[in-house]
Amino acid sequence: MGKVKNSKDMGRLLISCPDRPGIVAAVSRFLYERGANIIHSDQHSTDPSGGVFFMRVEFQLPGLSDKEADLNTHFSALASEFNMQWRMSLASRIKRLAVFVSKQEHALLELLWRKRAGDLNADIVMVISNHPDLAGVAASEGIPFHHVPINPANKKEAEKQQIALIKDKVDRVVLARYMQIVTPYFISHYPFQIINIHHSFLPAFAGGNPYVQAYDRGVKLIGATAHYVTAELDAGPIIEQDVERVSHRYGVEDLKQIGQQIERRVLARAVIWEVEDRILVYGNKTIVFA
Amino acid sequence: MGKVKNSKDMGRLLISCPDRPGIVAAVSRFLYERGANIIHSDQHSTDPSGGVFFMRVEFQLPGLSDKEADLNTHFSALASEFNMQWRMSLASRIKRLAVFVSKQEHALLELLWRKRAGDLNADIVMVISNHPDLAGVAASEGIPFHHVPINPANKKEAEKQQIALIKDKVDRVVLARYMQIVTPYFISHYPFQIINIHHSFLPAFAGGNPYVQAYDRGVKLIGATAHYVTAELDAGPIIEQDVERVSHRYGVEDLKQIGQQIERRVLARAVIWEVEDRILVYGNKTIVFA
Amino acid sequence: MGKVKNSKDMGRLLISCPDRPGIVAAVSRFLYERGANIIHSDQHSTDPSGGVFFMRVEFQLPGLSDKEADLNTHFSALASEFNMQWRMSLASRIKRLAVFVSKQEHALLELLWRKRAGDLNADIVMVISNHPDLAGVAASEGIPFHHVPINPANKKEAEKQQIALIKDKVDRVVLARYMQIVTPYFISHYPFQIINIHHSFLPAFAGGNPYVQAYDRGVKLIGATAHYVTAELDAGPIIEQDVERVSHRYGVEDLKQIGQQIERRVLARAVIWEVEDRILVYGNKTIVFA
Amino acid sequence: MGKVKNSKDMGRLLISCPDRPGIVAAVSRFLYERGANIIHSDQHSTDPSGGVFFMRVEFQLPGLSDKEADLNTHFSALASEFNMQWRMSLASRIKRLAVFVSKQEHALLELLWRKRAGDLNADIVMVISNHPDLAGVAASEGIPFHHVPINPANKKEAEKQQIALIKDKVDRVVLARYMQIVTPYFISHYPFQIINIHHSFLPAFAGGNPYVQAYDRGVKLIGATAHYVTAELDAGPIIEQDVERVSHRYGVEDLKQIGQQIERRVLARAVIWEVEDRILVYGNKTIVFA
Repeated sequence: MGKVKNSKDMGRLLISCPDRPGIVAAVSRFLYERGANIIHSDQHSTDPSGGVFFMRVEFQLPGLSDKEADLNTHFSALASEFNMQWRMSLASRIKRLAVFVSKQEHALLELLWRKRAGDLNADIVMVISNHPDLAGVAASEGIPFHHVPINPANKKEAEKQQIALIKDKVDRVVLARYMQIVTPYFISHYPFQIINIHHSFLPAFAGGNPYVQAYDRGVKLIGATAHYVTAELDAGPIIEQDVERVSHRYGVEDLKQIGQQIERRVLARAVIWEVEDRILVYGNKTIVFA
Repeated sequence: MGKVKNSKDMGRLLISCPDRPGIVAAVSRFLYERGANIIHSDQHSTDPSGGVFFMRVEFQLPGLSDKEADLNTHFSALASEFNMQWRMSLASRIKRLAVFVSKQEHALLELLWRKRAGDLNADIVMVISNHPDLAGVAASEGIPFHHVPINPANKKEAEKQQIALIKDKVDRVVLARYMQIVTPYFISHYPFQIINIHHSFLPAFAGGNPYVQAYDRGVKLIGATAHYVTAELDAGPIIEQDVERVSHRYGVEDLKQIGQQIERRVLARAVIWEVEDRILVYGNKTIVFA
Repeated sequence: MGKVKNSKDMGRLLISCPDRPGIVAAVSRFLYERGANIIHSDQHSTDPSGGVFFMRVEFQLPGLSDKEADLNTHFSALASEFNMQWRMSLASRIKRLAVFVSKQEHALLELLWRKRAGDLNADIVMVISNHPDLAGVAASEGIPFHHVPINPANKKEAEKQQIALIKDKVDRVVLARYMQIVTPYFISHYPFQIINIHHSFLPAFAGGNPYVQAYDRGVKLIGATAHYVTAELDAGPIIEQDVERVSHRYGVEDLKQIGQQIERRVLARAVIWEVEDRILVYGNKTIVFA
Repeated sequence: MGKVKNSKDMGRLLISCPDRPGIVAAVSRFLYERGANIIHSDQHSTDPSGGVFFMRVEFQLPGLSDKEADLNTHFSALASEFNMQWRMSLASRIKRLAVFVSKQEHALLELLWRKRAGDLNADIVMVISNHPDLAGVAASEGIPFHHVPINPANKKEAEKQQIALIKDKVDRVVLARYMQIVTPYFISHYPFQIINIHHSFLPAFAGGNPYVQAYDRGVKLIGATAHYVTAELDAGPIIEQDVERVSHRYGVEDLKQIGQQIERRVLARAVIWEVEDRILVYGNKTIVFA
C-alpha cells in the first residue's frame, strides 16, 4: 500500500527468472543472513513448470545505504545462479519525474496534489509542454516549466531538446495528457520508463478522440488506461484501468468531464505504483504488486 | 424498476419523433383526457433544436384491454401530427422468448432463475440449440427443447427450421451464449428483436475467443456486453455492459469464470429491460429508460 | 448532465405535490402556452395512488429573466390548484457558496478544481475555517478567507460571526471536511442548504474517526457520504455515496488515503447536483434527478 | 485464483505467528528440502516490529498424501520454534458442506450452480431447512434434504438434531439465507466454520429487515456481507462485501431484487475462498489471500 512510511533503511528487490524450486528459499535466506527483515513479499509464477517467476520483496536493513554496493555484489552471484533479471532500489532514493503536458491541467494537477498529500513519494523536477498554458500551474508549486513548441517540421529537434532537458535529471517520464505522439527515438532513452494516460478503456478506442469514438459507439461505460509507452501507439503494457457508467443522456462533453475524473485516478495509481517499484513488465503485460 | 407489479390495466407507450415544443403537453393531455394515470414518464432529447425526442410513458387505465384498439386509433392521429414512431404495449401481454444456446448453461440458467424469482416477467416458450447438451436444463423447468444441428453445409436449412419453430410463437430471441453467427436472413425476421450476450467489453475483443484476447492484451478489467444483433458481427446497438477487475494472477480459465458471472447479470438486465419495453433504438445506439 | 451549457434563458422548475392524474399535463401545457421549450423533464412518484409526486423541468424561454416575475405569479395559481411545493430558478443566476474547512485541503481543492474545469457552475465566494492553515489555498484562487477560531467556550459567538459573514451573500454552505459540529442554531439559517461530506458509508460509522472504526471492524469496502446537515449528527438526507474496495493489507493511514479520493468525488457530485437544482428533499431522503 | 486445477499432490499451509526475521526463509527452506515446489505464496504482517505474521503457501509435492503425516510431524518442530498457529490441508481432500436454508432459493441455487460450473470445489453433502419448500431444489441436484422445523419452544432440540445430522459428515456450514439465529451452543461445534450471508453492507443495518432499513434511511448503495458466525449477531469477522447503486426510484421490493444478486455473488466468493483455505481469522477480522 502506498502511504509514505518511514523509508529509511528500506530496500526493494524486484526479480524475474525462470521458475524452479528453491527461489523463495534462496532469496529469503540471503536477506535473513544479512540481517534484513522482510516487510512484505509478493510472488507470482506464470506456470510452476517451465514458467516465469516474479518476486518483489520489501525489506528493512539497518545501515542499508552503506551496505548497498556490497549487497548488490553478493546478490549478483545468487542472481546468476537462478538466471535472474533483477534490480534493487532504496526507498530513500526518491524517484525524479518529468511530467509532459499540453493544454489540459487535470492530470498534472492530480499529480501535484497527490504529491502534496503525501500519496506520491516522488520529486516532480520539471514540467515540459508544447504549449505555454500550464506554466502558471507549475509555478504555483515551484516547479520549473519548459516550453518546447512542437510542429511536424521540428519534431526531431524538439525531442532532442526534451532529452537534453531531462537527461541524468529524470528517472521516469509521465505523459499527463500530452497530446503528441512520442517517437521511437525518444522512447529508446526511457524504455518502459514512460507512462501515458490514454482516455479510453484500451484496446477500445485507441488513437485520437476516444470520447467521440465512445459516444458514437454508444458504450455504457467509459474508461481510462495508464500504460507504458512503446513504439506502437497506445499498445504498450497496461498498468491500470478503470471505468464509470454513462448513459444515453451523456453528450461528448459530459463523457469528457466524467472521463477526466477517471484519468486522474488511473494515472495517479500508476505513477504511485511505479515510483514504489511495484510494477514488473513481462512481454507486453504487467505484473503489479499493489 | 423491474420487480413485477400488478400489471393489470397497465400500458406502456414508446415514442420517438423530431423534437419540438409541445410533445409532452400533447401526450400527457391525451392520456389525461382518456382517464389514464401516468405512473412513470421518461424523456430524452438529443438536442432541443432539431434533435430527436424519445419518450416512455407507463400509465394505468381501467379496462385498458377493452379500450386498446380505440386508444391506438386516436393516438395515431396525434402521432402523425408530430411525425412520431411509436408503439403501445400492454403489460398484461407477457412477451414470449426463445432462448438460443449451445453447450454452456450459465446464461440460460440465469434467465430461468430470474424468471422463477419473478424478476423476468416473460414466457420462455422454447430453448433451441445446435447441441443436445442442455436438453435436461430446459426439461427441468418444463420448457420445450429443440435440437437443430448446424454445420457449414446446412446453415441456411437450419435457420429456416429455427424460423419455422419460432414464427408467430415468439416475440423476442435471446442468444444466451449461442456459439453460431446468425445470418442476415435470420435477423431480417426479428429486426432489433434479437439480443446477444458477447463475452467482452465491446468494441474491445469482438469476434472469437474474447477471453484469450483479453488475456493476451493484459487488460485489468474484463467485461460483457448485451446488444441487439445486426448484420455486422458484434456491432449492433449496445444495451448494457459491465466489468470486473482482474489481475496478472488470472489465467484464461479464471477470466472465463469471472466473465461468466458478468455475462449472467448483463444479459439478465438487458432481457428484463427489453420485455418491460424500456429500450429504444436510435441509429446504432440505445436509449434505455431503466 | 452537468457540463455547463449555454444557460441563458434556461429555467428550472422543481415541484412536489400529492400525486393525482393531470399534473404533467398541466405543467407541460403551462410552459408550452408561454413559449417555453422543455429541454429535460424528470418525474417520480412514491405511489400513484395517494403518494407524493416530484418533478424537475429544465426549459428554455427567450427573455426569461424579464418574464420571471410574471411566470412566478401565474404558476402560483396552478401550484395552489395542485397543492404544490415548488420553486423556479434561473440557470443564469449562479449560486454562491461558502466552503467551510478545517485543516485538510483535499475536499476544498477538489471543489476549486471542478470550478476551474467548468464542472461546478457556482461562485465560491468565501472560505471559512476554524484554523488558519488553508488561507493560502483560498488565496491562490483569489477567494476571501475568514479565520473564525472555535473552542467549546466561544462556539455560539463563533457561529454568530460565521452567519454575519455569509448572511445575504451565500446561497449554500458546503462543509468540506469541516471538523466541527454545527449547531441547530446555525442550521436553522440554512435549512437543507448545508451539505456535509462524511468520511464513511453512512449509516455505518457515524460520528468521529470513521476510518479507525472501519479498520477495527474489518470492512472490505470503505466509503463516503454527502448529505444535508440536520440537527441530528450524520443523520440528514443522503445525497450521494460511493465506496472502494480495501483489504487486510490496508492500515488506517491507507484507508484515509483511499477514503480522501472517495470523499472528493462524492462531495463534488453532490455540490454540482445542488447548484443545478437537481435535488429534492422528501422526509429524510432525497430525490436526485441526475 | 479459484478455477479448479489439477489438485493432486497439492498442499496448502496456513500460518500465523508473531512476526520476526527469518520466518519466510525457514518455511521456504523446509518445503524446498522436502522436494516441494511453491506454487503460490502470500504473506502479510500487521507490523514487522511486534506484529502478527500471516502466510499461505500453496505447494506441489509428489506423493503428498503418503507423506502427509511425516510432513506434519516435522513441521510441528519448526512451528513451535516460531510459536506458530498453523494447519496443512490437502487440496485433494475436498471439503464437505452443509447448506442451511429457509424459504428463499437464490443463495442455495447460486452455490449449486457454481459447484456444477466447477467454480466451487466442494461437496454439498446435505441441505437442512426449517421449512420444506426447497426440498425439490436439493433433490434436483441429488442432494439429501433434511427438514428440521424450528419454533421458539423446540430451538434447542432442533439444533441438537441438526448437529446429529452434520457431526463427522460436514466440514463447514453455510447459512444461505437461513432465517434463524443460531445459538452459541451450535456455533461452539463449528467455530469460525460457519459462514453467513447478511443482506446488508454491515455494520449498517444489522438485524432484521435490512432492505426496509436501507429504504427508510435512503442510502444510495445497497450491499451484502458474508461473515463468520459468532455469538454476537451479525458481528463476526467479515469475509467479503459488495454493493450496487440504487436510487430514489427503487422501492423495497426492488432493493430485495437487486440485493439478491449481490448476496449470490458475495456468498459464492466467500465459500469458494473458504474451501480453498484462503481465509485466516485474526481477532474479529479476516486475512483473505484471494
